[in-house]
Amino acid sequence: MSISVTVLAGGVGGARLAHGFALAQPGAAPTCVVNVGDDTVRHGLHVSPDLDTVMYTLAGLNDEERGWGLTGESYAVLDRLARLGEDTWFTLGDKDLATHVVRTARLREGVPLSEVTASLAAALGVAARLLPVTDDPVRTLVRTPSGTLAFQEYFVRRQHADAVLGLTFDGVDAARPAPGVLDAVTGTDLLVVAPSNPFLSVEPVLATPGVRDAVRSTRARRVAVSPIVGGRAVKGPAAQILETLGHDVSALGVARLYAGLVDVMVIDDADAALAGPITDLGFDVVVTDTIMGGPAGRERLARELLGLASAP
Amino acid sequence: MSISVTVLAGGVGGARLAHGFALAQPGAAPTCVVNVGDDTVRHGLHVSPDLDTVMYTLAGLNDEERGWGLTGESYAVLDRLARLGEDTWFTLGDKDLATHVVRTARLREGVPLSEVTASLAAALGVAARLLPVTDDPVRTLVRTPSGTLAFQEYFVRRQHADAVLGLTFDGVDAARPAPGVLDAVTGTDLLVVAPSNPFLSVEPVLATPGVRDAVRSTRARRVAVSPIVGGRAVKGPAAQILETLGHDVSALGVARLYAGLVDVMVIDDADAALAGPITDLGFDVVVTDTIMGGPAGRERLARELLGLASAP
Repeated sequence: MSISVTVLAGGVGGARLAHGFALAQPGAAPTCVVNVGDDTVRHGLHVSPDLDTVMYTLAGLNDEERGWGLTGESYAVLDRLARLGEDTWFTLGDKDLATHVVRTARLREGVPLSEVTASLAAALGVAARLLPVTDDPVRTLVRTPSGTLAFQEYFVRRQHADAVLGLTFDGVDAARPAPGVLDAVTGTDLLVVAPSNPFLSVEPVLATPGVRDAVRSTRARRVAVSPIVGGRAVKGPAAQILETLGHDVSALGVARLYAGLVDVMVIDDADAALAGPITDLGFDVVVTDTIMGGPAGRERLARELLGLASAP
Repeated sequence: MSISVTVLAGGVGGARLAHGFALAQPGAAPTCVVNVGDDTVRHGLHVSPDLDTVMYTLAGLNDEERGWGLTGESYAVLDRLARLGEDTWFTLGDKDLATHVVRTARLREGVPLSEVTASLAAALGVAARLLPVTDDPVRTLVRTPSGTLAFQEYFVRRQHADAVLGLTFDGVDAARPAPGVLDAVTGTDLLVVAPSNPFLSVEPVLATPGVRDAVRSTRARRVAVSPIVGGRAVKGPAAQILETLGHDVSALGVARLYAGLVDVMVIDDADAALAGPITDLGFDVVVTDTIMGGPAGRERLARELLGLASAP
């Protein structure tokens, strides 16, 4: 019998873990509730980087080495955009751009992002259900010593080098969860908080009205995988942000963020010494290899998490 | 001393003749007033085929063999659009698409088409002044035995195989000439009606309120080059349309359309026998080689037309 799984996801970490679940239960693809706070408009096109990372990864089309974008990409459009005077610091490949062209066209026709996402994912053969956490515009703003930056300005253009003093999810108070999101949280067997950035990826999902309460009230076993291993982020600026916001740069610091929301913290073997302190916070703790190298590693971790769903 | 030239243009014929003027007077680039009735929206992107044909030709970037689009094109985006379920009968190359992406973005920001066109042309190093005849939406609709078709549906998708029973330029009554258009018509030394399709390319320019009157009242010498040579169109469906609309399929039939508007009809050597009947309509007639093969042929024809400007 298959176990239903919902993953709260940002980009790469969520994409890889969702891929693991898809591999572990081929007939029971997971549902991914994905951050849209990193959405942006480039050259008039609506870009949803986290949604696309999950979609491309599940479609087997993502560039694993680079961690984003598509394999076999070309850049003919971007080169010409630069020649036409456009500012091309946000790299968009030709194939990737087709996604944004279609998304933008459908959104302009009034089709909600969740429907657009479903049809794009279906066209690429993705069996998993991809849900943007909301169809409404939510934009992550990053407060830094250099001022408040739009998310991709901070993340891509300035390569997350600025100290993060605070985050705002502009529009989140008025945002409604996309159709299916709350049911996907409350009605699943296993709810997984992906090893994504707690502040940039997970928090804008939880902050969408109704989602945090749904996580609190779900019947599912709730499991979070720490994105911090050995005091460092597996990828991206999670460690710096924990530090500048005054948290412990460790799996323990992450666990404190999820206390009361999540039942099980999954931490890496490297952090075995933190199992005690995290248990003291009220979590069940699983210590395992959380680094998902290739598909085999993802599937292995997913299988281990699936085992937690039926645990008492 | 240079002669100022304004060309009323559609796509290829206008593009080639404008290119000839640019070559003939390097320091005095022509002004092109271009049809926008063939503009369309594909995949949410605003495409202006006639404007782009003129722009690419003047930039030396057009695919001469094919007659449209850019040299060295690739189709990565179009391939992916097809995979995403888009209907891709309208071929858009990657480089070409960059033009439409930028145009669409600027139009959505409220920048008028004429300004967008000027900045795109400048970015591609085009010295000529490219003016869409209007910044307002005008769309050519083609009445056929199969019903009324949007222009590109008729022209590209159905490869202008349908009999044309009539034409409508939707929106033209409310359209205003773009800034500079009327001055470019009235204030030039030489006004040239390009060897473009009289119905599909030239008429929507003339039908824009104020343009026909400006042609009537200009101080310029007015010259039209017949797009019909030896009873056949040099390119496209001009011959079929002349026939189904009940006109002579000849340079004489074209001349009748321009009677009272144009001073000089330029016809091909192959049509020398029509010089008499066209003269009888009140035109001065120039018989010459009107087939513009490569750049040399364009420049030669342009030089010959420049000679007409100062003629009494």
